[in-house]
Amino acid sequence: MISYLGPEGSFCDMALRSLDLDDPALGLAATAGRDPAPSVPQALARVRDGQAAAAMVPLENSVEGAVTRTVDELADLDAAPLQVVREVLLAVRFALLARPGTQLAAVASVATHPHAQAQCRRWLAERLPHAQLTLAASTSEAARMVAAGELDAAVAAPLAAERYGLALLADDIADSPGAVTRFVLVRRPGPLPAWTGADRTSVVAYIADDRPGALLELLTEYAVRGVNLTRIESRPTGRELGRYCFSLDCEGHLDDARVAEALSGLRRGCAAVRFLGSYPRGDARPAQVRAGTSSADFAAAAAWVAGLRNQTRDDAAPTAVKG
Amino acid sequence: MISYLGPEGSFCDMALRSLDLDDPALGLAATAGRDPAPSVPQALARVRDGQAAAAMVPLENSVEGAVTRTVDELADLDAAPLQVVREVLLAVRFALLARPGTQLAAVASVATHPHAQAQCRRWLAERLPHAQLTLAASTSEAARMVAAGELDAAVAAPLAAERYGLALLADDIADSPGAVTRFVLVRRPGPLPAWTGADRTSVVAYIADDRPGALLELLTEYAVRGVNLTRIESRPTGRELGRYCFSLDCEGHLDDARVAEALSGLRRGCAAVRFLGSYPRGDARPAQVRAGTSSADFAAAAAWVAGLRNQTRDDAAPTAVKG
Amino acid sequence: MISYLGPEGSFCDMALRSLDLDDPALGLAATAGRDPAPSVPQALARVRDGQAAAAMVPLENSVEGAVTRTVDELADLDAAPLQVVREVLLAVRFALLARPGTQLAAVASVATHPHAQAQCRRWLAERLPHAQLTLAASTSEAARMVAAGELDAAVAAPLAAERYGLALLADDIADSPGAVTRFVLVRRPGPLPAWTGADRTSVVAYIADDRPGALLELLTEYAVRGVNLTRIESRPTGRELGRYCFSLDCEGHLDDARVAEALSGLRRGCAAVRFLGSYPRGDARPAQVRAGTSSADFAAAAAWVAGLRNQTRDDAAPTAVKG
Amino acid sequence: MISYLGPEGSFCDMALRSLDLDDPALGLAATAGRDPAPSVPQALARVRDGQAAAAMVPLENSVEGAVTRTVDELADLDAAPLQVVREVLLAVRFALLARPGTQLAAVASVATHPHAQAQCRRWLAERLPHAQLTLAASTSEAARMVAAGELDAAVAAPLAAERYGLALLADDIADSPGAVTRFVLVRRPGPLPAWTGADRTSVVAYIADDRPGALLELLTEYAVRGVNLTRIESRPTGRELGRYCFSLDCEGHLDDARVAEALSGLRRGCAAVRFLGSYPRGDARPAQVRAGTSSADFAAAAAWVAGLRNQTRDDAAPTAVKG
Repeated sequence: MISYLGPEGSFCDMALRSLDLDDPALGLAATAGRDPAPSVPQALARVRDGQAAAAMVPLENSVEGAVTRTVDELADLDAAPLQVVREVLLAVRFALLARPGTQLAAVASVATHPHAQAQCRRWLAERLPHAQLTLAASTSEAARMVAAGELDAAVAAPLAAERYGLALLADDIADSPGAVTRFVLVRRPGPLPAWTGADRTSVVAYIADDRPGALLELLTEYAVRGVNLTRIESRPTGRELGRYCFSLDCEGHLDDARVAEALSGLRRGCAAVRFLGSYPRGDARPAQVRAGTSSADFAAAAAWVAGLRNQTRDDAAPTAVKG
Repeated sequence: MISYLGPEGSFCDMALRSLDLDDPALGLAATAGRDPAPSVPQALARVRDGQAAAAMVPLENSVEGAVTRTVDELADLDAAPLQVVREVLLAVRFALLARPGTQLAAVASVATHPHAQAQCRRWLAERLPHAQLTLAASTSEAARMVAAGELDAAVAAPLAAERYGLALLADDIADSPGAVTRFVLVRRPGPLPAWTGADRTSVVAYIADDRPGALLELLTEYAVRGVNLTRIESRPTGRELGRYCFSLDCEGHLDDARVAEALSGLRRGCAAVRFLGSYPRGDARPAQVRAGTSSADFAAAAAWVAGLRNQTRDDAAPTAVKG
Repeated sequence: MISYLGPEGSFCDMALRSLDLDDPALGLAATAGRDPAPSVPQALARVRDGQAAAAMVPLENSVEGAVTRTVDELADLDAAPLQVVREVLLAVRFALLARPGTQLAAVASVATHPHAQAQCRRWLAERLPHAQLTLAASTSEAARMVAAGELDAAVAAPLAAERYGLALLADDIADSPGAVTRFVLVRRPGPLPAWTGADRTSVVAYIADDRPGALLELLTEYAVRGVNLTRIESRPTGRELGRYCFSLDCEGHLDDARVAEALSGLRRGCAAVRFLGSYPRGDARPAQVRAGTSSADFAAAAAWVAGLRNQTRDDAAPTAVKG
Repeated sequence: MISYLGPEGSFCDMALRSLDLDDPALGLAATAGRDPAPSVPQALARVRDGQAAAAMVPLENSVEGAVTRTVDELADLDAAPLQVVREVLLAVRFALLARPGTQLAAVASVATHPHAQAQCRRWLAERLPHAQLTLAASTSEAARMVAAGELDAAVAAPLAAERYGLALLADDIADSPGAVTRFVLVRRPGPLPAWTGADRTSVVAYIADDRPGALLELLTEYAVRGVNLTRIESRPTGRELGRYCFSLDCEGHLDDARVAEALSGLRRGCAAVRFLGSYPRGDARPAQVRAGTSSADFAAAAAWVAGLRNQTRDDAAPTAVKG
């Protein structure tokens, strides 16, 4: 069983359909069956309690930013750890759906999910300035409400029109066309997906003290080893204002020595670190490797240091010169 | 007229009531009248278009993190700039409200605002696992719906009970008791509130390039001058995944030379910087001033450098020794 | 009177002859007369006590490194400050000089100055392995000793041959051909030489505490403002092992805002800073100016900050976007 | 045979006598016999060519700074590597020696070594302003010259008086009383002296490019791992002005994981690195260990990362929490 943020036909469902779940690289035990969950916490809970082998959930959007519910669920030290094994990037398109025959001028009420509303709010303000807005648990649910006659129109994915027998009053209504959402497939911890050269590694780091400079030191652990960050998100720890943990994605795989050493540095310097996985990037963009930071460079340097430590008389190479 | 995220009785309303709006330090032209707005963008729009002299909106919560709608509205380079002149910290308490006579066991439907739901979700999962959850535009709206008989119960501030004639089925139901929300009072740009020694300065910085290390450089601009960051929030620029701007709060006032020089450094190194204000902290905690970074230290150093530049023969002090 | 590290015909004399001392940019009061001093401290003492208007002394050599006597004299906080107003770079050539008729095979004793010996020691070890070496106060003095019959040969500048009636037994005998020595013309503090765009600025910084990281912080003051260091020399403070001051040269002039701000930062963070001057580079290489660090960039940023501080209602520009 | 910078009775001789050379920790093959060499290069050459098992040479002085001849010899990539196995700190005292019966007022000529002259130059300038100064190859040689009647007085170690039958005209004449010189015992590379907890590790790092910021990066390799530098010396590479290598001492031993990882970082980032040894400090001061940087911390972090890489399903610990 694979869980996802439903309902059926949701963007998560689309992300899930784009994958071959039987790919052994994903390490999934039981891939048959789909389980649309009503919320991200519930989708993840089904993985944690063993009902589902994995779950597809949204992580961030190029317009709205982090999906904080997902970020917080994965970061929660009181909950069992989960591991990202794949990411999917989807272009997200919004349309205004209504029952067939409805005219735009006649739309007095609109339902949608808060994220969709956020991405379409200028269009709605300009074209439907007087419509009453209702927030629904998902864009699919909004479409269902329209089909049931509870409201006049819904902002949803175009494919929901077909599912609920609605018509497209307007398509591509997002304020920033070209929005992309990043979804992640998570399962219980297990063997890492193999290194591909175009990987991403995610962690959550809890700063040791409320001291200035802690974030700078954390970023330096990555920078000094030539590891590029691709996302940084501060999240409150829930204790008091000003206490944060950081959700961090970087280029590279734990099998890249520079990433492994950076994570080791985080582990030593932070109050707590949760590893969220190394997995292939959705865009397959290869990691940039700064001179001197390839795994071969790390191995050569470690071998040199080991040789210094174990050198026997007159048989040493204390000087290392770059090829 | 002063706008706020309504409805009447909301936490923003409470934050607003805690201030003396006629305090000349706030620089408000017309403080009579209250205007509860249905959303943060609308509350701010009324300030931008001159209908309101100021607006009180939520900025972050110790449990939920940034109120991204507020952060993004203030950061939007396409919209007129606004300026924070005061912050208010409020302990936020949630209760389960129902019509008098309702028993907890009989609650089959609950309404609340997504932020309140997020802060009470464990309580709800444990005590009302089977109740149907409806999201409302505000906790006050949820209470109104309950009063109107549309649902059984609402998660809202206790004071909404009085307002809507409801009873408290359970009080203090937040998963993390002691949650604090930070509200800011914003107006159109004008003279800065005076330096108090316990101030905060907010900016939004747009990184020049999508290059690794840009965030590290940005943080170094603060750190090298001894300016402590109190909040950092990455927000997408809406263009593509991986492009962010940063919403940053630091200790100190623009009248602190170290803050002024740090902002000048951001200005030189970033693609764009928006200044969001220097204003007294809600907790009145004085800024920590590292040795050598007081405004007097900056003035002495600048005077020394000016003296070097203008020295006349045999009448110079090229050596500066610390007292 | 202009002093220099003598004797007449020394490399310092040559450096001095390469300059037009009446150039008003040098700000020299009395340029007539030359005063060859027997040592760097004595050459500088004559400037300090007013006997000489300026002195030409060696500062560093591309083979031997810093001339520590000069570095320490300029850094000495107990002595009056001096100011570098010009630098001269000279290729330094060494020859083996002997009385006419002497054969190389017959050379049993060689005199030279320690620096010259250091630069020619392989040649001497290979070609005159059995010759007895005597150290002289200068290469000119060594030549004089040979002319006087006290020793067989001298390692000196070729022009000393003419002066003392000696012959060249071998020319260009330095182990690293192409050695360059950097000389500086110093006078008592006065107006700075004008900005040329190809300048250097020298300081001596005394670290505040014996704490790890102090040097890193010092270098960061330069780096964060895009100022490139061209030389760093640690010198003991004479108190105990492990206590150092740093003699630092950077690109740029005190009239470059980035340099002025960096020096201001040193002034605030260090126990003591001595300014040694801004002056044209001997190689006339223009300063590299990183984006955002020109004086115009600093002025624009300062004006922006000043505008924020003094803004009047509705007449502000809180957002700065790069051209 | 053990070599040292002679002659017999020199400070190096004294440093050598302070050690038990048969201590197996030093790893010396043949400790019988002493070989006073006329110069540092010659003392080291005898170790390199196998004539001597080790050599004692001066490395730095609290007044004069680095002994550049030693630093450069150890750094020379064209010469065979050598390894420091012990350091000795000696208080250095200077006296004015003359033949018995000589009066201070009658001293017209003084001989000494340049380093001794540098450390006594104020005393000499005040008390013997008119004496002619001659530089000798060592202070012992200066004493010998006085005993032979070639000059009137010598600045040397007090013990040279006894050796050469001279009298002390004045004792403790150094300008900075309390000067300390640091000597190092070097041999051909072999097993490292054992970790003591109060160790020092020395390397020479050749910067890869002539690029600004390279030194900052190099120092960051140490700082990010909590390794404290105790000495940094820039030395020219002999190619052109502005090209340097850096001679660096840090706290700790190669058996300290933080030191090993920092050296590995240098190895990856620098054009060349020469390891000069890990050895007990002369002052036996224990290394300061920042939280999270002990070898146990490194081992725990490495084990955590290894566990993540090899985790099997449902049997992992992706979260590491301190203490």
